[in-house]
Parts: sequence; C-alpha cells; structure tokens
Amino acid sequence: MNYEEKTMKSERVYEGKIVNLRVDTVELPGKKYSKREIVEHPGAVGIIPIKEDGSLILVKQYRKPVEKMLLEIPAGKIEINEEPKETAIRELIEETGFKANKMEYILEFYTSPGFTNEKVYLFLATDLEFVKQDPDENEYIQVKEIPIHKLIDMVNKGEITDSKTIISIFFAKKYLDSK
Amino acid sequence: MNYEEKTMKSERVYEGKIVNLRVDTVELPGKKYSKREIVEHPGAVGIIPIKEDGSLILVKQYRKPVEKMLLEIPAGKIEINEEPKETAIRELIEETGFKANKMEYILEFYTSPGFTNEKVYLFLATDLEFVKQDPDENEYIQVKEIPIHKLIDMVNKGEITDSKTIISIFFAKKYLDSK
Repeated sequence: MNYEEKTMKSERVYEGKIVNLRVDTVELPGKKYSKREIVEHPGAVGIIPIKEDGSLILVKQYRKPVEKMLLEIPAGKIEINEEPKETAIRELIEETGFKANKMEYILEFYTSPGFTNEKVYLFLATDLEFVKQDPDENEYIQVKEIPIHKLIDMVNKGEITDSKTIISIFFAKKYLDSK
Repeated sequence: MNYEEKTMKSERVYEGKIVNLRVDTVELPGKKYSKREIVEHPGAVGIIPIKEDGSLILVKQYRKPVEKMLLEIPAGKIEINEEPKETAIRELIEETGFKANKMEYILEFYTSPGFTNEKVYLFLATDLEFVKQDPDENEYIQVKEIPIHKLIDMVNKGEITDSKTIISIFFAKKYLDSK
C-alpha cells in the first residue's frame, strides 16, 4: 500500500526570519483529503562538547516560546551555504568560547516530524581549547561545565527538558563509558 | 542578571487546527529589541509500550513535513480537557490496538524550545493486552513489534530519526536492564 500523501494545494501563510509556515492539502489513500500545517525550518546543529575530565560544556539561556531559562547543549541554525560541521565549529566558539580540535558527526534526527521538517545534526566535540566567547549581539548565554554523572541525575529528575540535550547526554555517557 | 524577555508587542499570524503562529517583539537586556517567531502547540504524549518479551510496539506512518515514512513510538496531541495520561491510554489503543494495564509517567521535554512551546509527556506502558486497533479516520498506520537490541542498533545506524523515539529507546533499554 502506498501511504504517500500527494500535495493537491499548497498555501504559504508566513515567511519569517527562522521559520516559514505553509498549509498543504493532501490526498490520502482512498481519495480522501486532509490539511497539513507545516513549519519549515532550515535545520540546526547541536554540539556535545566533552572535556578531558568527563564534564560537558552546556549553555543556559532564556527561551521565549516556553518562557523559561533552559539548560541545553550549544546549538544553532544552519546558515545558507553552510555545511552542518562548519555550523557546529562556529556555534561552539560563539556560544562557549571553546574551539574543538576534533568535531565528529554522530547522528541526525527530526525534532517533531508531525508538524515541522526541522532536523538536528549532532556532533561530538573533543580536544577542546579555550579561545574566546563571541555570542551574537542578541544572545545572552551563561556557560556551565557539568560532570556527566550529575547530568544523568538531572535528566532522571526532570531538570533537563530539551530533547536534543537529553539525547546528547545519553550519547556522552555511552562515549565516556567506552573510553 | 535578569535574562527574561519582556513582550512589547504580540502579533498573531495564524490560528490553525494543530498549531498557531505568533511573532513577539521582545525587550532584551540593555533595552534592545528583537523578534521571536513562536509556534504554539497544545502538547503531545508519547507512549513506550514494552511487551513481556522485551520488544517495543512502534508505529510506522507517512510524515508530510519530512516527506517520509518514519518509525516512531505511538503518540498523539493532547485534546482539550484531557490529562496527558488519558491521552496516552487513548492513543495507544487507537494506534496499536493495545490496552496498557499499567501506564506510568516517565518524563516530559520540549521538542524544540527555540521556536515552539510543544511539550511531550512520555509514558511507559506495560502489562499490555490486545483489544482492537481504531485509528482516526485520516491516520494510516502500520504497527511493528521490534526487540530492544534491534532498536538500539537502528538508533546507532541512524535508522530511527524521530527525537522522542530515540529518547524512548534509551529509557526502554534502561528499564529492561534494571528488571
């Protein structure tokens, strides 16, 4: 059976700085029709910076959509003509001041494929060297170094609530256990 | 230092069936201004259904935003006046036909807090009993039972690309290892 949804009509509702919104009318199996609200996003990278001592470098920042300060891995939107790895190297320096002499691709995932095409590419950053923090003009970021066992604890207690950061902590634990 | 972003203006761009979009003008520290594009979402639940034999019950469905069939945990939007646990019980039966005699809250997380307030509440479903699949009229879903070791393998190979499903597989592994 072919489950693909053929686009019959596509209406652009909004074109913004970070996201666009469109509403597609799709044909379902059995010649039925439905609407799909789709948020277009350029994609992002997340970086898991692991220090020699087994701690991770995270950032704490205010997130307007949820009206809260959240603790997250360094991350950022992929700019036009940028490879995900370049974004990872750039964002890690901008947000934390650390340059990674080793930046390895780990995996990629969709944050919420029911309504958005946003994909996050995850990288493991090791062999870190402090250079100089250089955030975007409108970014207000606190840098935190936290040991992995403390982070696992924080995930279990519900104190880390960002999906890419939870995934990253699991991967960091696996990486550190395998060393 | 207060990092909170005060809303100076809020413009509603779109009100839809599943998401709304608004653009907020916020005041940053130092009296500067910036725009925030915010996708409002009612929240969702994800269910980790674990069978006695150590396999998980997953669903495969076409996701229009990414134009692909994806393998995911059963999940669904929280309806008005519904508690997340009720949504979890309802969606598991609708999508897979299984009734969980035990449905335990595990944790909650934001899928992508940079642009949306969508929160996913994760539940562990055990003591499963087959009743009858009853998908929504416009849902076309294939049910798959896959052993946990195979799923871990699929995550490592990049064959599972949905964030809530990756998080769930890590939790299921931990749960099964602790039994």
